[in-house]
Amino acid sequence: MNIFRFGRPGYKVVVGLMLWVLFPSVLPAQKASLSKEVPTVKVDRDVAGQATWIWYPGDYAIWLANKMQNRRTERGAFLPVFWKMDSHYVLVEFHKDFDLAAPETIHIAAEGRYNVKIDGKAVTGNLNEIRFPAGKHRLSLKVYNQAAVPAIFVKGDQVRTDSSWQVTFEDKEWIDASGKASDKSGTTYQQAACWNFNSAAAKPSQFHLPTRPEVPVKKTSLSNGNWLLDFGRETFGYIRLKGIQGSGVVRIYYGESAAEALSVDSCETLDTIQLTKNVQNFDTMTASTKAFRYVQIAPAEGMQIGQVDMLYEYAPVTERGTFSCSDMLINRIWDVAAYTLHLNTREFFIDGIKRDRWIWSGDAYQSYLMNYYLYFDQPTVKRTLFALRGKDPVTSHINTIMDYSFYWFMGVQDYFTYTGDSALVKTIYPKMQSLMAYCLSRRDKDGFMEGLPGDWVFIDWADHLTKQGALSFEQLLFCKSLETMATCARVTGDTRGAVQYSQLAADLKAKLFDVFWDKDKHAFIHSLFKGQKDETVFRYTNMFALLLNYLNAQQKEEVVTHVLLNPKVQAIHTPYMRFYELEALCAAGKQDVVTREMRDYWGGMLSRGATSFWEQYDPAAKGDAQYAMYGRPFGKSLCHAWGASPIYLLGKYYLGVTPTSPGYGTYQVKPELGGLKWMKGTVPFAGGDIEVYCDRTKMQLQSSAGAGVGTLLIESRRKPSCSQGKIQQVGKNAYQLQLRPGQQYVVNYEAI
Amino acid sequence: MNIFRFGRPGYKVVVGLMLWVLFPSVLPAQKASLSKEVPTVKVDRDVAGQATWIWYPGDYAIWLANKMQNRRTERGAFLPVFWKMDSHYVLVEFHKDFDLAAPETIHIAAEGRYNVKIDGKAVTGNLNEIRFPAGKHRLSLKVYNQAAVPAIFVKGDQVRTDSSWQVTFEDKEWIDASGKASDKSGTTYQQAACWNFNSAAAKPSQFHLPTRPEVPVKKTSLSNGNWLLDFGRETFGYIRLKGIQGSGVVRIYYGESAAEALSVDSCETLDTIQLTKNVQNFDTMTASTKAFRYVQIAPAEGMQIGQVDMLYEYAPVTERGTFSCSDMLINRIWDVAAYTLHLNTREFFIDGIKRDRWIWSGDAYQSYLMNYYLYFDQPTVKRTLFALRGKDPVTSHINTIMDYSFYWFMGVQDYFTYTGDSALVKTIYPKMQSLMAYCLSRRDKDGFMEGLPGDWVFIDWADHLTKQGALSFEQLLFCKSLETMATCARVTGDTRGAVQYSQLAADLKAKLFDVFWDKDKHAFIHSLFKGQKDETVFRYTNMFALLLNYLNAQQKEEVVTHVLLNPKVQAIHTPYMRFYELEALCAAGKQDVVTREMRDYWGGMLSRGATSFWEQYDPAAKGDAQYAMYGRPFGKSLCHAWGASPIYLLGKYYLGVTPTSPGYGTYQVKPELGGLKWMKGTVPFAGGDIEVYCDRTKMQLQSSAGAGVGTLLIESRRKPSCSQGKIQQVGKNAYQLQLRPGQQYVVNYEAI
Repeated sequence: MNIFRFGRPGYKVVVGLMLWVLFPSVLPAQKASLSKEVPTVKVDRDVAGQATWIWYPGDYAIWLANKMQNRRTERGAFLPVFWKMDSHYVLVEFHKDFDLAAPETIHIAAEGRYNVKIDGKAVTGNLNEIRFPAGKHRLSLKVYNQAAVPAIFVKGDQVRTDSSWQVTFEDKEWIDASGKASDKSGTTYQQAACWNFNSAAAKPSQFHLPTRPEVPVKKTSLSNGNWLLDFGRETFGYIRLKGIQGSGVVRIYYGESAAEALSVDSCETLDTIQLTKNVQNFDTMTASTKAFRYVQIAPAEGMQIGQVDMLYEYAPVTERGTFSCSDMLINRIWDVAAYTLHLNTREFFIDGIKRDRWIWSGDAYQSYLMNYYLYFDQPTVKRTLFALRGKDPVTSHINTIMDYSFYWFMGVQDYFTYTGDSALVKTIYPKMQSLMAYCLSRRDKDGFMEGLPGDWVFIDWADHLTKQGALSFEQLLFCKSLETMATCARVTGDTRGAVQYSQLAADLKAKLFDVFWDKDKHAFIHSLFKGQKDETVFRYTNMFALLLNYLNAQQKEEVVTHVLLNPKVQAIHTPYMRFYELEALCAAGKQDVVTREMRDYWGGMLSRGATSFWEQYDPAAKGDAQYAMYGRPFGKSLCHAWGASPIYLLGKYYLGVTPTSPGYGTYQVKPELGGLKWMKGTVPFAGGDIEVYCDRTKMQLQSSAGAGVGTLLIESRRKPSCSQGKIQQVGKNAYQLQLRPGQQYVVNYEAI
Repeated sequence: MNIFRFGRPGYKVVVGLMLWVLFPSVLPAQKASLSKEVPTVKVDRDVAGQATWIWYPGDYAIWLANKMQNRRTERGAFLPVFWKMDSHYVLVEFHKDFDLAAPETIHIAAEGRYNVKIDGKAVTGNLNEIRFPAGKHRLSLKVYNQAAVPAIFVKGDQVRTDSSWQVTFEDKEWIDASGKASDKSGTTYQQAACWNFNSAAAKPSQFHLPTRPEVPVKKTSLSNGNWLLDFGRETFGYIRLKGIQGSGVVRIYYGESAAEALSVDSCETLDTIQLTKNVQNFDTMTASTKAFRYVQIAPAEGMQIGQVDMLYEYAPVTERGTFSCSDMLINRIWDVAAYTLHLNTREFFIDGIKRDRWIWSGDAYQSYLMNYYLYFDQPTVKRTLFALRGKDPVTSHINTIMDYSFYWFMGVQDYFTYTGDSALVKTIYPKMQSLMAYCLSRRDKDGFMEGLPGDWVFIDWADHLTKQGALSFEQLLFCKSLETMATCARVTGDTRGAVQYSQLAADLKAKLFDVFWDKDKHAFIHSLFKGQKDETVFRYTNMFALLLNYLNAQQKEEVVTHVLLNPKVQAIHTPYMRFYELEALCAAGKQDVVTREMRDYWGGMLSRGATSFWEQYDPAAKGDAQYAMYGRPFGKSLCHAWGASPIYLLGKYYLGVTPTSPGYGTYQVKPELGGLKWMKGTVPFAGGDIEVYCDRTKMQLQSSAGAGVGTLLIESRRKPSCSQGKIQQVGKNAYQLQLRPGQQYVVNYEAI
């Protein structure tokens, strides 16, 4: 029905696609079907008794990230990252000891060239199906794969691959001439990693995110004969062209705004599909995914295209967190924020879907936090942490940025706090140690970290923010990173490390206050450079000190008054840092201020027609000028993960749910309406959900049976009542109630 | 003419080869033609004005070594290495600044996905052919390749890829929102590496060693209907089956001896070619190379094979060194040694062609030394050094063996001494530093290196050789390695490192003599373990101390008398350590002893029918028992690089040619007949050759014009005469003559 006519029909069905010549292995037809064949699930723990593909921990993330991050193009030109890309271990040994009552037949699949050994003796012949004997025996496989991650899938009645297998990249399995076995005591084994590729056919190297077809909501014929398609809102995927007739080049110009798609010369991304020979009724699609709401289709003269639609590509994560309230605008903000985060949740947590599509540690750190209130998807956090960290040796900060190394440590801390997953901590701890060793080796004579040659000291996109010398902001994050090291050292049983890191953190914290806390300014000042202090007060150090709980009650007050609510202190313009600014205000109990800010700032974007939240928003900018950034008319990303912070703020500081010991072993709920009449929502955790309803006189709470013990904190003019538990007074107008798992609580109170 | 008939002819030409299913990318037909298409040359310096493929230094060696070393099979089972295999950098930036008088068109080829920038701005459109402007401009390319090494080939009139390009794996090329360029001052650039792939079509990833057909010298029909083929001598390559009719499995059993090929159950290597459907007059070949002299061909019943021959695979190196003398047996030993080394010189210097086919540092170290007297092929030494070292971080000793780390350092020292190639030293120095840091971090409280968990302390295959505690042998090699570090630190301009390493070496040397030199035993004793000395005297430490010149004249005498020529000291049985034992005897002037030993030991192997020299030779073993090792009847390798030492001994200690400053800037010639009536030969170096003739009354010498200044050392009963130069007396019966390049010298003298 939607025949686009551009000229005479073609004759021959011989096709050459320029882009496919570059990537012959990725044929769209394959891709589409693969996305159906390869199941994608969001849990990476073993399903009991289920065989699954396994590999060396972290390697799949590194390999997949290389693949994903190298998809960036800028107006057709390949634009790779500027930091070191690492590789998986190409040769990996897997083994596990079994004790079977009866022999059994096991089926083996591997990605790479491999051998199979039983008790160290090589099996010959058909390695896809072997007989495994009864009794105590060790099964070992060793796999070589240069191009993709060595991985194995073994399935028998009892002999199966799962994360209980041991893996190493260096088995030291020699036997000397005398038959003496090697000294393997220096070999380091790790637990295997997996991600629920649960059939032999579901090869990890073939993984693609799933897709589904979507059609444009509007098609406009342009005066130049081209078509402008509007998909209704920000989206991501492949463009499909169907029923093509003729030959020549079809150009596709993408736009997050209509203006961008219409700007042939300045749109940020474009595609070219070249049909070198005449085709008739031919279907094709773009070779790689793009972000867009609008698409301009420009076929060569004489070509016809029958229909254009898209394959929407998405991460199969489940929105488990919910939020709704009395304020319709806030509800819309939450919905659009959730959609924004979903678009930026792909193989990994990325920065934005249009331009970089890279994994940036500072951006990802915020996505982790939002994730804990929306999906609680652990695998995506883990993959992102592994991908960012790469392999040793450490040759630069993560993403080359000093602060981004620190966010990486803090991301591990939060992951542990929210999930209680000590296995991840144990696996990743050696990589934490080597990155921290790199940081410690770069301290100045005062023990502070300054930007050294090759370091990018970022903090924020902001004017007047000097980067020379020791910045209080960087020392604060450095200190938090050292505290994280101490925590993780304790988790892994490295008691000596725990003591050392704790001491380093305590020393640095003391120096931080000593050098940078200015009593007269009631705030942290900016920096120390060549013995001279830059006494400018910025928001950054101060808001982080508040939200990381580095301040005593009086200092907290001072920072709120003299910095956060002080209009003379330079304002923040990026949603990136507004995330923490609003969080700090929430942490200081200023939810009412935050509600207004959300309505203004995020509501402002919605009033400009945003269907996802932006990289940056300047209320003063008008018309197409609001899309400009980096000196390019459409440089700004209109769908940036860091724009989705309301999810986090509303979940953590309005519904008020936070773990107080790892993995929600204990947690607290401290509802804050922030001026809303009522709100209700769900906060997910590994073992279930916590549901909260709150208005000015009533609270209602329920947690899943798998939860730990919660503490409800209530501010009330009078003593609240609850028939399901005992309310305790803990201060003036302050009460609390213990929440047992599985129990519903209704509390009557009177909001202040 | 050689039709093998095994049964009825088949009908259909549909073929499935089991091995090819595993490695579909390597089709023999392709392989044979590739070996012709891709030129293989032995020099890796740029040919002036010649464009060549370039890559990150060391990466090609690492990638190619993974490929080569993973070809090992044992009776059909894949048998990979047990140490860490590293990978190339998958994302590499290449650039060079040009200043052209006129614009020009340049042609670009790359292995991997790539972009092209001129002065930092991406070129769009066709990247295979671009216009490069006149004036000063920077050309940059950035290439991503996970499966093979990122490499580029650029060819214009003046703009061409060669080793003058800069490369990095981490360009830190960011630009912040304000347009401020990144701080690249922390970026490390290296000079690009190449290996004379000098056309766009000669892709590095497609490289294969060349092959040529060879036919068996004898075919024997066996009583079981199979055929035994004899190729006349030890050889290496693919077996080709031609004119096959029928279907089923053809089994191929390889033997370095006839007994091995006939032993279906115990031969070390075999192949299986499966034709699942009937074929008629079909040709095929094995998927991978094997070592053999004999081959048993066992087709399924009902199959016919028309003809069997082989594709001999070889390294295209040139035998530049020569040696001949009055003793026909020594001449045959030299020839068979040269052939043995050639067979073991492949993509890298390997240990032996039948079994491991791996790069072992201790074995390779000897090949380097032999190479300097046979091929003087620098690229193979460099590739082998890079492949052995791999990438950081260092997680174990090279090949997991402590002594093998030390041989690696010593290999760099020798390479520099023989070639004077300071560019290699500069490139590899950071990897020397990190390996040495690993070694230094593993010293005990006395500063000695003991075997720690996971370390293999090897020395030699020998009885009674305890490996516990600090072994004098390991400390000696450690000391030499520290001296190598000091030398290379000076070459790279690391003056602080030079001082530190020199001091460490001097301290260790002092302790070595202090703790292990036993005045009463006139020798180094074995070890120190938990404060107790093991006072056994082995040959190892003592012979190395002598040949590394660690002994004064008196100690040298003592070691010769009390160790080397003392039958009570445990004898050495491996050609591996006989290499150094005989070298030490040569260094002590005992060539006459060495001549006898060569005739006995290597002549003994020849008398057993050896066509290449063995991994181990026991004159007492009889019949097939002589092929046994590692508890397997044919476990012993009959073609092992370390068996070829006569090449080195005859070149260095008989012809007597050695560099005395890096790259033969100066050198000495000290002919020693060792009981021979006459000898003549050629010793190659980078810039040409040195020719030596010597009998008991005459010496004749000539060096190429490119040589440095040589010193001929003559021992003579009377003052020698020479009309081309002035003979100087330097001691009793000791004379010398300065040798200028390009000049022929004839010296008359009287041997002592």
